[in-house]
Amino acid sequence: MRTVFFVSDQTGVTAETMGHSLLTQFQGAPYRSVSLPFIATVAQADEVVARIDAAASESALRPIVFATLVDDQVRERLRRANALFLDFFDAFLGPMEAELGMPSAHASGRAHGMADLETYSARINATNFALANDDGSGNRDYAAADVVLVGVSRSGKTPTCLYLALQYGVLAANYPLTDDELEHPDLPAVLLPWRQKLFGLTINPERLQQIRQERRPNSRYASSQQVHYELRAAQAMFARAGLPSLDTTECSIEEIASRILNRQRIERRVRL
Amino acid sequence: MRTVFFVSDQTGVTAETMGHSLLTQFQGAPYRSVSLPFIATVAQADEVVARIDAAASESALRPIVFATLVDDQVRERLRRANALFLDFFDAFLGPMEAELGMPSAHASGRAHGMADLETYSARINATNFALANDDGSGNRDYAAADVVLVGVSRSGKTPTCLYLALQYGVLAANYPLTDDELEHPDLPAVLLPWRQKLFGLTINPERLQQIRQERRPNSRYASSQQVHYELRAAQAMFARAGLPSLDTTECSIEEIASRILNRQRIERRVRL
Repeated sequence: MRTVFFVSDQTGVTAETMGHSLLTQFQGAPYRSVSLPFIATVAQADEVVARIDAAASESALRPIVFATLVDDQVRERLRRANALFLDFFDAFLGPMEAELGMPSAHASGRAHGMADLETYSARINATNFALANDDGSGNRDYAAADVVLVGVSRSGKTPTCLYLALQYGVLAANYPLTDDELEHPDLPAVLLPWRQKLFGLTINPERLQQIRQERRPNSRYASSQQVHYELRAAQAMFARAGLPSLDTTECSIEEIASRILNRQRIERRVRL
Repeated sequence: MRTVFFVSDQTGVTAETMGHSLLTQFQGAPYRSVSLPFIATVAQADEVVARIDAAASESALRPIVFATLVDDQVRERLRRANALFLDFFDAFLGPMEAELGMPSAHASGRAHGMADLETYSARINATNFALANDDGSGNRDYAAADVVLVGVSRSGKTPTCLYLALQYGVLAANYPLTDDELEHPDLPAVLLPWRQKLFGLTINPERLQQIRQERRPNSRYASSQQVHYELRAAQAMFARAGLPSLDTTECSIEEIASRILNRQRIERRVRL
């Protein structure tokens, strides 16, 4: 099998994001992945080259290397390996230097380093906010929220709130609709003042049943009847209140998060 | 000011990761960011071109467009805009097609779409695991954990566990050291069976004091004396037990997560 290496002088987040994104365009080609972050010296680069060459000699298929290396010397060493070498800075820094009319820093990337304290604090504060506003009870702080996700239990609210917090520093609260609330056609009173911040999540009933079944096997909570009832009632409530909503069944967490930010025109507090 | 556009037919996560990573190499060049995800049709592309051209005519500085567009027609439309156009698929798909000996799918990227149910479930389960194993008490399930982060209150454990879960599907538990435990030089008894899974987090005392001060102003918890005492005791405990540890003060969450995975040789359950 072909080996794909992700080599970076920092965390490797960019190299992996780039590489996997490209590899999804070649679904028929199986491969195994090796991530090698924090490769910053020539000596480390030489070790990496030895690993790549070993993988190359074990397979008829040459390895592919996705790299984000800003140091020219380190990059040149890597280029000696027996592999298709795709370096991200190589491809784009040239045109950017020309456009911006300045040389690039060539300094080991701070893209996912500790850019500044403000950014770090924004993410941590948003995470704490999501955790504190996770169950619709207790210390609700919807006045501070950028968005309040509304939906039945296990429709994807909690992971989405946490992702919005960690990735974008967005303050996302989450309000689970209870049985009692679903009996009424209107939004719960506590949500009414925050209408502009509300966003509904729905999910396919079979999928929801499967998720709940794993959590509480053979419970009323996981029954087909209950799941269908809750989802119908929630959807009717969203429609009546005119809330935007999204079916999360076929969506990754990234996609749910992006669609919410896009639809609600929420400014990210933190850049990737 | 220059405008930087991130244009994608999917979530835009790849375009933004790529773009910001490159822009960090040009620290002197201020810019404003506009994210335009889910641009999949020629009509939508034309609207984007109009927005880019408007930004171009408002400033003496031409916009930069970071794009991840797999549809050739959509990409060709975007290329008409008055901007430096850097498309990620453009640059790398050619060499990859040659190496793999197959054409790329040219299908709108599933990189951050719902790749498969298994991946989605792994992330959700890991998030639930992190939430259930967040405070060292209650239902501890260290037998299932990939890693158990140990440290004093507010040293970065919770956001790191959640990030490991959401990004990599890794099962990360978190054990806060209490005052009582810090009075003893050895690891708490409950942790002893899991020695190989333990990883210590430390932090600079001034930084920790600042974080705690925001949380509980002028408390004993936030006092210089208490913070110095706790950190000294925790570090002595890690050293005596031979635990690997990391000072999180200068690290982003991505970096803490990458360093833990790398040091502990933990396999990611989910790819970016």
